[in-house]
Amino acid sequence: MSLEELQTRLREFADARDWGQFHTPKNLAMALAGEAGELLEIFQWLTPEQSTDVMDEPERAEHVRQELADILAYLVRLADVLDVDLLAALSSKISLNETRYPVDRARGTAAKYDKLD
Amino acid sequence: MSLEELQTRLREFADARDWGQFHTPKNLAMALAGEAGELLEIFQWLTPEQSTDVMDEPERAEHVRQELADILAYLVRLADVLDVDLLAALSSKISLNETRYPVDRARGTAAKYDKLD
Amino acid sequence: MSLEELQTRLREFADARDWGQFHTPKNLAMALAGEAGELLEIFQWLTPEQSTDVMDEPERAEHVRQELADILAYLVRLADVLDVDLLAALSSKISLNETRYPVDRARGTAAKYDKLD
Amino acid sequence: MSLEELQTRLREFADARDWGQFHTPKNLAMALAGEAGELLEIFQWLTPEQSTDVMDEPERAEHVRQELADILAYLVRLADVLDVDLLAALSSKISLNETRYPVDRARGTAAKYDKLD
Repeated sequence: MSLEELQTRLREFADARDWGQFHTPKNLAMALAGEAGELLEIFQWLTPEQSTDVMDEPERAEHVRQELADILAYLVRLADVLDVDLLAALSSKISLNETRYPVDRARGTAAKYDKLD
Repeated sequence: MSLEELQTRLREFADARDWGQFHTPKNLAMALAGEAGELLEIFQWLTPEQSTDVMDEPERAEHVRQELADILAYLVRLADVLDVDLLAALSSKISLNETRYPVDRARGTAAKYDKLD
Repeated sequence: MSLEELQTRLREFADARDWGQFHTPKNLAMALAGEAGELLEIFQWLTPEQSTDVMDEPERAEHVRQELADILAYLVRLADVLDVDLLAALSSKISLNETRYPVDRARGTAAKYDKLD
Repeated sequence: MSLEELQTRLREFADARDWGQFHTPKNLAMALAGEAGELLEIFQWLTPEQSTDVMDEPERAEHVRQELADILAYLVRLADVLDVDLLAALSSKISLNETRYPVDRARGTAAKYDKLD
């Protein structure tokens, strides 16, 4: 299933429930950030190494998958109501970052990386 | 360009700069939430109505597109390092929510909607 | 009870449980942001007007109080492990903002306000 | 300067600029979460050990102090408009957690800690 098809499914899901009234860009941005907060809670007390193994335990792996899905759902809904082409936006941003962070200067440097966005 | 192709481009971008060392799941979850915070800042003082018109001003529209791209970038990187299929995860979540929120009971009800996740 | 006394209580609470090992600044920043995400979830589907009345319902009012307490708890812990004087930091920031946002230019202007931080 | 005095100063600061109109609980919750996102960005690429030394560099230390002040400012404003006594709320929450997390069972256990809130 493509991202475009999922966008349509999410729109139909919201429309069928008359939830469009709640889906202002402001509210969707809040919902997205709320889900990002739930994602943080999975990782907050883990060491970096433990965070790498987070999918080893099936129940927690499912929790992670659902949080990633929730974030993507609100991101896609927000792009939909704002009429933003998410894939094109990301493609442009990668091209921009390729110019901003030339390989020879950015290699292994968190200091540069800090300014990624 | 498909989401899968963008995932590959982002991986190659990080690998070429030896940034994999920074891309633990814990760090990527933080970066994603940080970007979600920047998105909030665009909308925080806007009325719901103003938030709907946020793309009318070209410079701000570009800002919004870049923030959405940043969030998607970290979400895709995180899914990549965790080996999660984002599109499949979202498809499953929508199916789950179709069961949880039957149209006849969920229509127009933020109270139900509150428990979406 | 003063903020300083609460800071001491929180430190003793953590020490008694040997939780200092989890309380790195990085982890506490994540926990704080996670709690801020939970706060967002209370308000995300409310209109601005509904958000003003959020304390009218006792159960929800208690929920709000607990979320504000959680955020303050992690903020105070973080300040403690970083040896930051929170009250002095806020006092300095207000003084700085009084210079940045002169009353005659900032009055009623969200545009200026946008740059508050 | 006490937290109560700072709360009054922040209220007068907002009133003098006619910013009360922007300070709905919904908007203040967003602003708080936006600042929490900025705090994350300071720590996101640091190892746990590096995060412990974040105050060693004076410019970054000042950045941290300002972010903590920004978070406290919005937290105090939000408590003010909701008429919540922040210090009393935190004191109650600590008492609640002392019951929830008995020292003998919670010692050194992130698993328990995970359910802190």
